[in-house]
Amino acid sequence: MLPRGRSRALGAAVLLLGLLLLVGLFLLGGDPWAEDVGGSCCHPTPPELPDGRPSRPASRDGASRPPRCQLLHVAIVCAGLNSSREVVTLVKSMLFYRKNPLHLHLVTDAVARSILEMLFRTWMVPALGVSFYDADQLKPHISWIPNKHYSGLYGLMKLVLLSVLPPGLAQVIVLDTDVTFAADIAELWALFADFSDKQVIGLVENQSDWYLGNLWKNHRPWPALGRGFNTGVILLWLDRLRHEGWEQMWQLTARRELLTQPATSLADQDIFNAVIKEHPGLVQSLPCVWNVQLSDHTLAERCYLEAADLKVIHWNSPKKLQVKNKDAEFFRNLYLTFLGYDGNLLRRELFGCPSQPPTGAEELQHSLAQLDEEDTCFEFRQQQLTMHRVHITFLPHKPPPPQPHDVTLVAQLSMDRLQMLEALCRHWPGPMSLALYLTDAEAQQFLHFVEASPVLSARQDVAYHVVYREGPLYPVNQLRNVALAQALTPYVFLSDIDFLPAHSLYDYLRASIEQLGLGGLRKAALVVPAFETLRYRFSFPRSKAELLDLLDAGALYTFRYHEWPWGHAPTDYARWRAAQAPYRVQWAADYEPYVVVPRDCPRYDPRFVGFGWNKVAHTVELDAQEYELLVLPEAFAIHLPHTPSLDISRFRSSPTYRGCLQALKEEFHQDLSRRYGAAALKYLTALQQPHSPA
Amino acid sequence: MLPRGRSRALGAAVLLLGLLLLVGLFLLGGDPWAEDVGGSCCHPTPPELPDGRPSRPASRDGASRPPRCQLLHVAIVCAGLNSSREVVTLVKSMLFYRKNPLHLHLVTDAVARSILEMLFRTWMVPALGVSFYDADQLKPHISWIPNKHYSGLYGLMKLVLLSVLPPGLAQVIVLDTDVTFAADIAELWALFADFSDKQVIGLVENQSDWYLGNLWKNHRPWPALGRGFNTGVILLWLDRLRHEGWEQMWQLTARRELLTQPATSLADQDIFNAVIKEHPGLVQSLPCVWNVQLSDHTLAERCYLEAADLKVIHWNSPKKLQVKNKDAEFFRNLYLTFLGYDGNLLRRELFGCPSQPPTGAEELQHSLAQLDEEDTCFEFRQQQLTMHRVHITFLPHKPPPPQPHDVTLVAQLSMDRLQMLEALCRHWPGPMSLALYLTDAEAQQFLHFVEASPVLSARQDVAYHVVYREGPLYPVNQLRNVALAQALTPYVFLSDIDFLPAHSLYDYLRASIEQLGLGGLRKAALVVPAFETLRYRFSFPRSKAELLDLLDAGALYTFRYHEWPWGHAPTDYARWRAAQAPYRVQWAADYEPYVVVPRDCPRYDPRFVGFGWNKVAHTVELDAQEYELLVLPEAFAIHLPHTPSLDISRFRSSPTYRGCLQALKEEFHQDLSRRYGAAALKYLTALQQPHSPA
Repeated sequence: MLPRGRSRALGAAVLLLGLLLLVGLFLLGGDPWAEDVGGSCCHPTPPELPDGRPSRPASRDGASRPPRCQLLHVAIVCAGLNSSREVVTLVKSMLFYRKNPLHLHLVTDAVARSILEMLFRTWMVPALGVSFYDADQLKPHISWIPNKHYSGLYGLMKLVLLSVLPPGLAQVIVLDTDVTFAADIAELWALFADFSDKQVIGLVENQSDWYLGNLWKNHRPWPALGRGFNTGVILLWLDRLRHEGWEQMWQLTARRELLTQPATSLADQDIFNAVIKEHPGLVQSLPCVWNVQLSDHTLAERCYLEAADLKVIHWNSPKKLQVKNKDAEFFRNLYLTFLGYDGNLLRRELFGCPSQPPTGAEELQHSLAQLDEEDTCFEFRQQQLTMHRVHITFLPHKPPPPQPHDVTLVAQLSMDRLQMLEALCRHWPGPMSLALYLTDAEAQQFLHFVEASPVLSARQDVAYHVVYREGPLYPVNQLRNVALAQALTPYVFLSDIDFLPAHSLYDYLRASIEQLGLGGLRKAALVVPAFETLRYRFSFPRSKAELLDLLDAGALYTFRYHEWPWGHAPTDYARWRAAQAPYRVQWAADYEPYVVVPRDCPRYDPRFVGFGWNKVAHTVELDAQEYELLVLPEAFAIHLPHTPSLDISRFRSSPTYRGCLQALKEEFHQDLSRRYGAAALKYLTALQQPHSPA
Repeated sequence: MLPRGRSRALGAAVLLLGLLLLVGLFLLGGDPWAEDVGGSCCHPTPPELPDGRPSRPASRDGASRPPRCQLLHVAIVCAGLNSSREVVTLVKSMLFYRKNPLHLHLVTDAVARSILEMLFRTWMVPALGVSFYDADQLKPHISWIPNKHYSGLYGLMKLVLLSVLPPGLAQVIVLDTDVTFAADIAELWALFADFSDKQVIGLVENQSDWYLGNLWKNHRPWPALGRGFNTGVILLWLDRLRHEGWEQMWQLTARRELLTQPATSLADQDIFNAVIKEHPGLVQSLPCVWNVQLSDHTLAERCYLEAADLKVIHWNSPKKLQVKNKDAEFFRNLYLTFLGYDGNLLRRELFGCPSQPPTGAEELQHSLAQLDEEDTCFEFRQQQLTMHRVHITFLPHKPPPPQPHDVTLVAQLSMDRLQMLEALCRHWPGPMSLALYLTDAEAQQFLHFVEASPVLSARQDVAYHVVYREGPLYPVNQLRNVALAQALTPYVFLSDIDFLPAHSLYDYLRASIEQLGLGGLRKAALVVPAFETLRYRFSFPRSKAELLDLLDAGALYTFRYHEWPWGHAPTDYARWRAAQAPYRVQWAADYEPYVVVPRDCPRYDPRFVGFGWNKVAHTVELDAQEYELLVLPEAFAIHLPHTPSLDISRFRSSPTYRGCLQALKEEFHQDLSRRYGAAALKYLTALQQPHSPA
């Protein structure tokens, strides 16, 4: 037996140790009471414990974090065009606040994958990894579950992430596409530290009375613990789930419940809740601020009125931003912040966390570093090297059915030409592939513009590809190449946005392609003669005869007849007047006709940015590759007037601009010589013989 | 004497108590070692203490905060046009992250005050108070100090804030205008809790070797403790400063140092450092992340490579964003985030912190609440009620010298009309007041556009007023009223942006005003006849004779002759051809001439938004107020062609739009009748007699 004094000292030491332990837990974020938490809805801090001790707020306050530079993993199921647009706003909000390297695990269908692969490849965000998983492979695992939720089959896929995510992945945060971050995701990751040994899943309580039942007559929800949990934000402890036999567990529960329930109403969430009801020890309840749910009948107010800090907003109403909530304006502003946020600004490094640079970033960095800032054409060269973020098929689109002679109209535009779209749709009933050069905020204005237009929103065969603005010069040829690469028909009509084609052109081109036997061995570019009007209002000619009358009356001109006749002179308008059949013309200097070519035609030279020579170089390329130039006797398109673009004004007023264009032309010809040898000599000779004034 | 066992227990208890105290300090942010901190530059956490104990990172980690809803005070010295533009980005970044009510104490000159008063009044940010203090009153306190720093006299004013700030104010954060927040300012405020009883000022160490001296031959900086401190971000404990006799203290030091120093090199910072060198106990050293200094020779890298979290970026180089720093791109992106950030999104409430709503906010809320969402004109009525944020004199501007017959050209535009500005400047050598309807991001593009244009940047007499976009309809008359209210000459020429005035118009108008004796008792509006060309390139007539030739040749038309002849028919172009002297014309329905009027003329009716009838209503108002309409025989302006605005396209295609315009007209006439009684009957009669087709 120990002497009394010693035992007392020991007692004090034990007390001290206990206290230290408590303080340690407090500081490190361990949660000895975790299993008791949950039950009452929507309080920003966990409620008081039964014995009156306040539960500790420490790690819930954003104080604790995962180690600096630790890679955090996020999984998202994303299918279809609209979700792939929606997820970008989520990703932007996440990247804005993040300070850790992230890896996105995206479970996608083919549509979302093609969009998002291009987006992330061109976005080039440092310290961001992206992996894709095929959602179709998951379908058999869940297609047996009848589901009434608007998210469809994809809504159930969160149940089966285990089967696609890498086996070595221990923990992951799973997010719905309709959440927005207002805090650093590392703080959310830190909550894994609060899990007890048995807990495998972290969820925020559901902020509605749905699972309490009796919302209406015969409303019988799936079983849940109290108000149940919302699965818009999930912390998944994957290796524990594997160990617990998660697959069998949820399937067993689901099959049993489906004996009495006709279907799931809220997709995966019903099943997660039924499992948790049966195994309450699996769940760690997360603070409500990590999933503030804005459905119509939300109780979220109890959360956000008390919390100083909202971390994640969840637009979990089918109405999304249009949800009825008296504070919706506040939340919308958070959302709109990232909707319109310039994604280019997120290309920022994480200081002090070494990471694999994005593919191509080092080469790009190297090329940029080699530019000479004193070079007067520095701006041009920098613009040429700019990697623009590209979001293909930004709006709903149905690919045209495969037809052997079909033609897609290809063009590019910026915000100031939106007015052209409706008229263009009226003149061209076929498929179009349009590249739009926009800021993130303008992309949203554009979306609203299309939605507000009955003409535009009725068309499913027009694909809009957003190329995000960066740099002072308009990257006209890069835009054309994006639109061209996305054309899905065998032929393309390479047009410009301010031209309206003859109403009959689409049908006529398809017939001509067939009759001329294009696409076989014949390598040809069909020329569509170009005209212009200087009047805003004029009645568009319904036939070639009407067009010729207008031309004779001086109401129409051949395109740029006054300013730059060489651009279209080789089309030989005089011959065209009387022509009954397609006729061949020869290339000449500065020729830049609008042509129909096979989709695999040469790309535009991206070195030409801003105004000038961008189409001319393409025609040289066509000629060098021995495309026959065939003028179509019944085809025409008419240029409508518009305010000159800023680039043109700049070109006209700046000797530097013209000087740089000249330098670019010369470099282009050097490249031509390298590729085509002596055959390219004629282009150089032509370049060196300036035109006499028009 | 106590028994031994008991003394041991007591010892343990004391130890326990000590430990508790330590934990308490740790958690509450008290800092028992504060006076030891400082000396080595730029570490993200305070360095280890001499005995090897790591100093505690707790409250430095963002974990501690001031109580929720506590009002935080911020003082900023801001003088001149450029600083008042710069400070907006600082304020946006602060508001973006803040979760507490804020009060800004702005020490301004008259220029900054007029700009910022208007800005904050129209911004209507909830839970944001703003007080202004006259910088001129502070000048005598500091003008005796010779100062070589680019910030001039205003740079010294942080020394004398005590004498202007409210006597009851205990603590304040003082900021330079060139800092950007990347964290919640409440975390900075929380560092007041780290102050010892004697400390009065919190500063971040200077992140350059400036104060070490010997940077070059004869470089002899002011005295400082080690590397010294940077005063871009200051925590000032005001009531302690008062108690310590701050005024005497710094003046004594400054006067003594100025015996050997010719002037301050870094303004207030030199003096702060000299005082601190003498009284090191006054300063609390703040973590480097609260003032990451990006001057050319910065040592800030030592800070940001180690810190996970940067809180405040300080652009403390005269080169600002152009600073040479290999990581500048990263910091620029943070800055650009807020530069282009839509300030309207910051009009968000602080949930759960009741605060005085901004002036006018309740009335506005009430009016908006009374609108009927089902009303087909809901969008119009909502737009009319929108309070647009207004930033007057956005760019450098010199008010025109007072001249009794001077005329300001007043117009409004959006981004798609920027191209007009240069031509307009060439045609109108006099003062202009232009309202621009822009997003925050566009305002920056506009700034670059002006800076890149030699023509525009040479003009100091053109005032640009930015009205920030909000809502779907173009608030044309609100824009006109902003431009009109800011005109500084006795007369205004109410024009539109797509008109070019005759080269002689400015001189001719001033002469006419003088000759006609306007401005005395004669209440008249001088009509400038309007013409239009449909060609983009045409040579502008140098005289009335040339104009008439072009008119006869069909190269010019009277304005909107084809579409809307009533708008200008009362000008009587036939009479104008031969007129040698001004002649009076009568008002008629739909007349909308371009006129020159005294500056105190009636305002435009803001109910007309979008396209249609906005100028017509103003002419009615002029007639109702009995302005004589006098056509000037030698005056003319010519409308240049441009792409139709989206609003016009919408008007043309939408019956709802036309219906709403009709409703607005009727309400306008009801108001007229109320104000002018029977005299207004003629307008109503005219309205009810539709024109026969043109």
